[in-house]
Amino acid sequence: MKLFTVGPVACRPEVLQDMGIQMFSHRSKEYQRIHREAVERLQRFLETKGQVFLFPSSGSGVMEGTVRNCVEKKMLCCVTGEFGKRYAEVGVSNGKEVEKLETEIGNPVTPEELDEKLSSAKDIEAVAITYNETSVGILNPLPELAKVVKDHGKLLFVDAVSAMGGVEIKVDDWGIDVCFSSSQKCFGVPPGLAMASISSEALEMSSRAKNKGWYFDFKLYEKYQQGEWSTHMPPPVPQIAALNKELEIVEREGGKQKRLELYQKRAKRIREGVEDLGLKLYPKPGYESPTVACVNAPAGMKGLDVYERMRKEGFELAKGYGVLKERTFRIGNMGYITIEGIDEMLQTLGKVVRK
Amino acid sequence: MKLFTVGPVACRPEVLQDMGIQMFSHRSKEYQRIHREAVERLQRFLETKGQVFLFPSSGSGVMEGTVRNCVEKKMLCCVTGEFGKRYAEVGVSNGKEVEKLETEIGNPVTPEELDEKLSSAKDIEAVAITYNETSVGILNPLPELAKVVKDHGKLLFVDAVSAMGGVEIKVDDWGIDVCFSSSQKCFGVPPGLAMASISSEALEMSSRAKNKGWYFDFKLYEKYQQGEWSTHMPPPVPQIAALNKELEIVEREGGKQKRLELYQKRAKRIREGVEDLGLKLYPKPGYESPTVACVNAPAGMKGLDVYERMRKEGFELAKGYGVLKERTFRIGNMGYITIEGIDEMLQTLGKVVRK
Repeated sequence: MKLFTVGPVACRPEVLQDMGIQMFSHRSKEYQRIHREAVERLQRFLETKGQVFLFPSSGSGVMEGTVRNCVEKKMLCCVTGEFGKRYAEVGVSNGKEVEKLETEIGNPVTPEELDEKLSSAKDIEAVAITYNETSVGILNPLPELAKVVKDHGKLLFVDAVSAMGGVEIKVDDWGIDVCFSSSQKCFGVPPGLAMASISSEALEMSSRAKNKGWYFDFKLYEKYQQGEWSTHMPPPVPQIAALNKELEIVEREGGKQKRLELYQKRAKRIREGVEDLGLKLYPKPGYESPTVACVNAPAGMKGLDVYERMRKEGFELAKGYGVLKERTFRIGNMGYITIEGIDEMLQTLGKVVRK
Repeated sequence: MKLFTVGPVACRPEVLQDMGIQMFSHRSKEYQRIHREAVERLQRFLETKGQVFLFPSSGSGVMEGTVRNCVEKKMLCCVTGEFGKRYAEVGVSNGKEVEKLETEIGNPVTPEELDEKLSSAKDIEAVAITYNETSVGILNPLPELAKVVKDHGKLLFVDAVSAMGGVEIKVDDWGIDVCFSSSQKCFGVPPGLAMASISSEALEMSSRAKNKGWYFDFKLYEKYQQGEWSTHMPPPVPQIAALNKELEIVEREGGKQKRLELYQKRAKRIREGVEDLGLKLYPKPGYESPTVACVNAPAGMKGLDVYERMRKEGFELAKGYGVLKERTFRIGNMGYITIEGIDEMLQTLGKVVRK
C-alpha cells in the first residue's frame, strides 16, 4: 500500500532500519548520545535556544501537559476544526475553564478576531492554536497570530503536530511557549514519540503548578534531561533513534530550508494535480495546508468512495474527518513520499474520480 | 553488549524485525487486526474476561491513570522500594491523599500488616501494590495481599511492570482491578507501550471521576477499543505489532505455563550461579524476585564496580538503584536471554568478582 496518509505516514528505509535496532538501557551512554543529538538537532530546526523535550506519548500527551503545567484557571482555544476542538476537550477534562474562538468551518483564525477576543477577556492566561488543522486542511497564519498573543502578554501553545518538519516554525522569533508535534507526521518516523519546545516562562508556570501530575510534569523532563540526557521513565528508544536518523538526513541533505522547499514542491504538485482533475480544495483560498490537501469529493461521489477506490488501487489516502467525513477526502503530504510517487497517485486518482 | 538489564531488555530477532515494518494507519483494517489479536492474547495470558487496553506510554502512565480515574480522595501505597515510592509520588502529584505502608528495606509487605492498616483506615478507597519491586529484587506475596484488599472491599491496583509475562498473574481469580506493565520488561519488546487489565469496577469509578484528563481516561480507551479496535490517539504501532508477535511465539511454544517455567528455570540458574560464586542475594529469603536478582556487592567492591567491570567484558547488568546503589548490583532475567547466555555471564562474573 502506498501511503498518502495524515499519520502514521510512510517512513524511509534508513528510519525503519533504526526502528529495528537491538535495545540498550535508557540510562546508558549509548542512549544519552542519541537523546542529546536528537534534542540539539530539534533545537536548530525549530530555531530555539530554549529547552526541547522528548515525550513517551503522542502529541496529545503534550497537549494535556500544557494544560496541567501552565494553566491555572482559564485558557483560550482557537478552533478551526476537530483538533482545535480536541484541545478544548483536553482543557475541560483537566478541570480548566476554556473559552473558544471558533471560526466558520474552512476558515482560519484571523489576527483581528484574536485581538478582539483577548481584549474582551482579560483573565485568559494562555492561548492554544492549531497551526495546521489536519481535519480541514487549513494552515492558520501563525506568525501574525503569535504576535497578537504576545502583544497581550499571554502564554502561547502551538499544536504543530502536522506542521513541524514540513512548515516554517521559528520558536524564539515568534515567541511560542510550547510548540509540540509527534513523530509520525512530517518527520516520517513511526508513532509513539512526541517532542516539544518549552520556554522558560512555561517552565516557570510549571514550577508553581498544583496537581500537575507526574507523567507530563515539564519540570521532571527538565531535571532528567539536564541531569542525564534521558527521561524520568523509559522513553521509546527506537523512535528516538529513528528521529535522530531522520534529522541527521535533513542536515546532510542541506538543512531545514532544503527540507521545507521539498515539502512546498510536493504540496504544489499535489495541489496542481488535483485541480487539473477538476477537483477543488476545501479550505478558504490562501490558507490551504501544504502538508494535507483536503479535497471536495467530485459530484455524485462521497469522499469515502474515493478513499475506498484508491485503496483497491493500492493507495492509502485519508478519509474525510469529523463533519467533513462525507464531503471530502484528504491527501497527506508527510513523511517519505517521492515526486514520482505523487505523479503515480494522481494518475490513479484521475481514473478513480472519472469512474 | 549482552543484556541482563531490567528494561529496556534484549529482544528476539523476530520481534526486532516487526519493529521495522512499514507504517499503516491506526484506523485501517490492518491495524485493527493486530490490536485485537494482542488484546485477546493478553486476556488469555492474564486470565481475565475483563478489558485489556494498550496505552501509548510507559507503565508509569497507567499508574497515573489509576490515580486519576479511580481515586477520589485517598489511597494506600505499599512501599517496598523505589517503585512503591514512585506510586506514592504519582498519587500526591495528582492531588490525592496518600497513606503509605512502608516495610523495612529488603522485606515484603505481609498480609497481616496490610490487614491491620486497612482495618485502621476505613476511608482508603484503593490499594496500590508493586508486585515485583525491581529496585530491591523482591516479589511481594500478591495472591495473599490481594485477598486482604478484597476482603476489605477496596480497589486493587497492581504495578506488575517487571512481573507480567514472567511471573504468575491471575487477574480475575485474584480480583485485581488494574494490573499494568510495560512492553520493555518480561515480554521482551522495546519500550514505548504499556498494557493493563481494567475491571468493570475500575471503569465504573472512571465514569464518575472528575478532572481525570483526556490522555489516560480509561473510558476513552474503552470507547475506541469497542468501537474500532484502536485508541483515541495514534498508538505505537511498531511496539504493538512486536508485542503481538511475542505473544504469538508464547502460544506457539506451549503457552503461558511453558513461558513461566522458562522464567523459573532461568531464575534458578542465575541464583544458584551467583551463590556458587559466594555472593548473596539482598532480599529476605523466600521473597527473591525471579525476574531480577539483586545481589550484594562482594567485600571490598562497590556494586557500581561490578557493573562497570562487567560492561568492559561485554555484559550490561543493572546498577543498584536508589538507597542500594552502592551496596548492590542487579542481574535482570527479562526478555530474550538463553541458558547458554546465562552461563557465559556467570563465568565472566566469577572472573570479575575475584579480581
